[in-house]
Amino acid sequence: MTIQVFGHKSPDTDSTGSPLIWAWYLSQQGTPAEARLLGEPNTEAAFMLTRWDLPKPQIISEVAEGAPVVIVDTNNPAELPEAINSADIQGIIDHHKLVGGLETAGPIDITIRPLACTATIMIDLMGDAAKDMPENLKGAALSCILSDTLEFRSPTTTAHDREVAEMLAKDLGIDMAAYAAELFAAKSDVSAFSDAELLRMDSKEYAVEGTKFRVSVLETTAPNIPLDRKDSLMETMKTVAAEDGVDQVLLFVVDILREEATLLVPNDLVKTLAAKSFGAEATGDTLVLPGVVSRKKQIIPNLKL
Amino acid sequence: MTIQVFGHKSPDTDSTGSPLIWAWYLSQQGTPAEARLLGEPNTEAAFMLTRWDLPKPQIISEVAEGAPVVIVDTNNPAELPEAINSADIQGIIDHHKLVGGLETAGPIDITIRPLACTATIMIDLMGDAAKDMPENLKGAALSCILSDTLEFRSPTTTAHDREVAEMLAKDLGIDMAAYAAELFAAKSDVSAFSDAELLRMDSKEYAVEGTKFRVSVLETTAPNIPLDRKDSLMETMKTVAAEDGVDQVLLFVVDILREEATLLVPNDLVKTLAAKSFGAEATGDTLVLPGVVSRKKQIIPNLKL
Repeated sequence: MTIQVFGHKSPDTDSTGSPLIWAWYLSQQGTPAEARLLGEPNTEAAFMLTRWDLPKPQIISEVAEGAPVVIVDTNNPAELPEAINSADIQGIIDHHKLVGGLETAGPIDITIRPLACTATIMIDLMGDAAKDMPENLKGAALSCILSDTLEFRSPTTTAHDREVAEMLAKDLGIDMAAYAAELFAAKSDVSAFSDAELLRMDSKEYAVEGTKFRVSVLETTAPNIPLDRKDSLMETMKTVAAEDGVDQVLLFVVDILREEATLLVPNDLVKTLAAKSFGAEATGDTLVLPGVVSRKKQIIPNLKL
Repeated sequence: MTIQVFGHKSPDTDSTGSPLIWAWYLSQQGTPAEARLLGEPNTEAAFMLTRWDLPKPQIISEVAEGAPVVIVDTNNPAELPEAINSADIQGIIDHHKLVGGLETAGPIDITIRPLACTATIMIDLMGDAAKDMPENLKGAALSCILSDTLEFRSPTTTAHDREVAEMLAKDLGIDMAAYAAELFAAKSDVSAFSDAELLRMDSKEYAVEGTKFRVSVLETTAPNIPLDRKDSLMETMKTVAAEDGVDQVLLFVVDILREEATLLVPNDLVKTLAAKSFGAEATGDTLVLPGVVSRKKQIIPNLKL
């Protein structure tokens, strides 16, 4: 039975590229496997698929009871199909904190590492076989690492992620900086999305002392595109919060090149949160946070109310 | 701050030896670490410590908030100190099914593999450094593998566990079969334990359709030692079940050399369970199950009511 390999809902580049890489590796090892997506890939991930002529994986929303699956780039049941624990989970490869909630029937292969990117872990796990990856999957791996590290600007970056990316770029014979710029331009091309889509695109729920937040991040090289729409985005936060059962949506527009985040401040709750979390006083309805680019390392761990 | 490395409560050989191995490795890598035990080691584990002149790790029952720890040979919060999720869990190395329940503040190193023994996984993770282990830790690693595989008789054994054990025995220049016999003789020396201690020594809780069992296994080369006490053991099951909040204690006396288990059958509940689970009719108060030696692979997955 073919193993389905997938990442998290609202797939970004790592959750689109890593399943393709691992499905290839499993198939090489004699275990038939195919990549799946739990939703439409974001614009950066879609660019990666086109640029490297990779097939867009089939989009699924459910998994059948007992179906063999490998989960990558998440270990959070909230980011996976509802019936995930009734599937036959055969492996987990991830680089996020352990959330708890996934269960398996027997012992399986689980590898979680504090690296910036799932693709980096996969290249380590493959050992020599990584060298045999077809060029388009090497391109996918490089895209995943550049995306997750924001071209090594994010504090989640490790020396090892960088080393692997440089090895891949050399192997592919491409100019890594030029390619990263193309990738980020694709990520920044969000004008086609509705406000609600933008607010949900790259977001994680997180509670601070009982108050539930949807913490959204928009990584971009063109912050003016979302910031020009800030009034409308702040208005839509109310609907999205109500629909998603959270108290407040937070939107951080991360300027990849300037390495700073702009937080939208629609009300006193967010103003208080910003002051307590980042020690910064919002005077208008936006607040610039210099140096802040990583939700995992700089935003979530600092949130206070 | 020194990292505390420990396995599960009621430590067996793997949960005693693996923390010593990993604490050594971490210290070698420049991260001060010490092994701990969550209770008195069983007789086999105690024999291993004496035979290889290893220091008995300090026994702890609690962990302080924020204390750095590495968990080995389990990922089950029920087998760990109550406040485990408030500790700073820095790593998990295990070979059991994912239970769910452990949580970490950030991404950490987690390695779970479907191998028979934690020590085997550690040797893989160490790579070349494994060759530098002092002789007594190589002895500990060999003990862990022989113990968890019942000298390769258990169906949990993989070719890789066997290969690693053979490499260690060769390296140590010892007769592996003779050493396994010594180890199992130590494990079988349970005459000093009370009935309640025997019933709790190597046991896991497991529910079948709402009925809660404490599934105890006694691996031994001298099954007559516990079986001669079966009347008294069956009487004590009632007290232990009541004290531990389960409906029934199950005791499987596993004869390592004959590769069979003898289940005590104190009442109709266990008789019914045995018939449905193993298709075997108990005529008296014991039931021999030929070929059954592994709780993980042969007992727990078959339990039905």
